[in-house]
Parts: sequence; C-alpha cells; structure tokens
Amino acid sequence: MGSEVVLLDSYISMFGMRVRVALAEKRVKYEYKEEDLRNKSSLLLEMNPIHKKIPVLIDNGKPITESLIIVEYIDEVWKDESPLLPSDPYKRAQARFWADYIDKKVYDAGRRLWATKGDEQEAAKKEFIEILKTLEGQLGDKPYFGEDSFGFVDVALVPFYSWFYTYEKLGNLNIEAECPKLVAWAKRCMEKETVSKSLADPKNIYEFVLQMKKRLGSD
Amino acid sequence: MGSEVVLLDSYISMFGMRVRVALAEKRVKYEYKEEDLRNKSSLLLEMNPIHKKIPVLIDNGKPITESLIIVEYIDEVWKDESPLLPSDPYKRAQARFWADYIDKKVYDAGRRLWATKGDEQEAAKKEFIEILKTLEGQLGDKPYFGEDSFGFVDVALVPFYSWFYTYEKLGNLNIEAECPKLVAWAKRCMEKETVSKSLADPKNIYEFVLQMKKRLGSD
Repeated sequence: MGSEVVLLDSYISMFGMRVRVALAEKRVKYEYKEEDLRNKSSLLLEMNPIHKKIPVLIDNGKPITESLIIVEYIDEVWKDESPLLPSDPYKRAQARFWADYIDKKVYDAGRRLWATKGDEQEAAKKEFIEILKTLEGQLGDKPYFGEDSFGFVDVALVPFYSWFYTYEKLGNLNIEAECPKLVAWAKRCMEKETVSKSLADPKNIYEFVLQMKKRLGSD
Repeated sequence: MGSEVVLLDSYISMFGMRVRVALAEKRVKYEYKEEDLRNKSSLLLEMNPIHKKIPVLIDNGKPITESLIIVEYIDEVWKDESPLLPSDPYKRAQARFWADYIDKKVYDAGRRLWATKGDEQEAAKKEFIEILKTLEGQLGDKPYFGEDSFGFVDVALVPFYSWFYTYEKLGNLNIEAECPKLVAWAKRCMEKETVSKSLADPKNIYEFVLQMKKRLGSD
C-alpha cells in the first residue's frame, strides 16, 4: 500500500496485541513505538486526545483508536489479504457481537481476578469461568470463532490467552481444567506465527502485574 | 428485500430509537413489538439470551442485538438507500469512534443527572456538559456529524435529544444555553420525518422517569 504505518502500543496490552495480530495477518510493515503508560508521550496525547490510551494506529499521519475499530479499519484497508470479518452481513453482526461481548466482559472479570482478594476474588473467578464457558459454547466444535478460518473474534479474544498464566497464578484457578476446548482453540491459534509472534510472553505479563500490585499496595 | 423484520423494543429507549431511525431512513417495513422490561417476553429471552436486552432486530427469524451493531447490519443489508456509514475506511473508523464515545459516555452521565442528588448530581452535570461540548466541537459547522448528510453518528446521538427535557428538568440545567450548536443540530435532525417519527415524546420519557424514580425510592 505504500503507506507509513506507526503503532503506539504497550507490550503487555491485550488491546495492543489485537492490533499487532491483525497487522501480522495482513502482512503490514509498521513502526512499533512502546509507550510508557505512566509517562505518556506527547505524540500519544496528540493522537488520542479523547481517551489518551494505547493502542493508536497512525496511518500516514492519521490516527485510529480503540482496538476493535482499528482492527476493522485494518481489515477494510488491507482487504485482499486474510479477511477478518466475513462478507455476509448477518455473520458480520454476529462477529461484532462476540467481539463486543469480549470487550464488555473478559477484561473486567480478568482484572478482578488479580486485583482483588477474598469474596470479591471468588466472585470474579466464578464470573470469569462463566464468561469463558459462554465463549467456549459459541466456539462449539469449530477450529476458530471465524469457523474454518481465523477471524475477527479470534483476534479479539486470543490476546487474553497470554494473560491466562497471570489469571491462573494470581486467581488460583485452572482454566484448562474448566474450559479445555477454549484452551485447545488458543493453542491452535498460537500455531499461527502471526499470533505467536504478536502476543506478549506470559511470564513478562506476570512480572508486570506483580510490580503493578506492589505499586497499588494490594499484595 | 422481501424479508420479515420484527423489532423488539421499548418506546423510551434511546438504543431502540437508534434502530427505529435507521429502519426509517432505509424505508424498511417492520413489525414493532413493545417489551415490558419488568416482565420480559419469552421471545426476547430466546432472541437475546446473553444480554436479555432490547433492542433486538429479528430479520427472517435471525436475531441481531446491540444497537450500534444492529444499525451497521441495517446499513449493510439495505445498502442502496441512505447510506449511514461513509465508504472511506478512515471516515468509517472515525464515525465508529464517535458512536462508541457516545455509548461509553452520554448514557451513563445522563442517567446520573436524574438518578442522583447533591454533589454526585453536580459532578454528573459538569461531566454531561463536557461530553456534549466535546461532541459539539466535533460537529463544528457541519450540518450533521456525517458531514453533508445524516449518518451513523447522527443516528447514534439524536435519540438522546428526546431525553434532554428529562435531563434538564431533573438535572436542573439548560442544555441549549451550554451547547447551542448541538441543539441546533438536533433540531435540524428533527426536521427529518425519519427522525421525528422515530423518537419518543420527551414528556412521556419524563413521566416514565418520574415513575421509575418513585419505584427506586429516590423521589
């Protein structure tokens, strides 16, 4: 496409990982800029003045923000390579529904798994497993959420897999025991280099979260 | 299209109104079914088992849920009449961004305007006006958010205009004094029959909210 693409991101962000996976699927070359979220760059504040959050994709100087919106943008601009959303309007609506469900549910319950204790943590654990079981039910026996091919919902969800280690260690749960099909799906995704190279190392995420808990004084 | 379209909705819902406006813009004939949200129909629970919320669009038996996802679906299926999203990917991303901003901000701050008192209400008032001013700034001197034509962001925001009366009466504020351009935009939208016929009567919303406050015991 000849465009200059820059990604403002944070290595451990599941939202940033979505964009990295989508760019890798589309074979888009881009410049990666790691943001220090405790000391945001003036470029980030200029490019996302409303939410001041990563990820921001800058395509030839024009910023796009909010991870699912960025992924749809990438799918529309680089449309010939590995389509992420199906072409049928009903299937598109379903894919958007599940990506939105992931946005509304998984991050928040996952955060409470490591940021809370006692009853609150137990409630988060129950809720988190319920959410994953709902997703697993939706997956059924398909290889991917996008049926035979890796697609939009897979991109939306697979970055959370790199957080499973942290959720398990700090939330004291065994996700594979609860949701074997979902973990098999995640491993299947990880066989794709576009995914495995784009996701953060689970141990690094764990270290990061431990440090964050220390700063928050909640360990 | 020859399809049988049913809308499960609630008259005073801004989310339902979005769908009604989009269907009117596209001249889609549909059967309207009012839901009693305190006694949800088995059809609603069957069609939206995950969130159990209105609006649900049922197109030839297939349910679509979440208002913005429904509006995109309508735009894609009935694509020849009054396009709502622009065709340029960057403009599409921007329209999705602002619709998402409205979803994340306006409803919640608006609810706190009538559901809280004292300092909490004052904070909501300040926040609500800031949000509207941000949107007003984005509108600039264009007739619609969709530039020269009524589009996706207009559909996302204009239903809240029917709630302004309630926000003003119960939140004790004057939106037009704070955001004259935004109110001028809303009045411009209301000149379109597709909008004015789809929005709820502000007085009915006010009565509904007064009764809800009574039930919630917050006079």
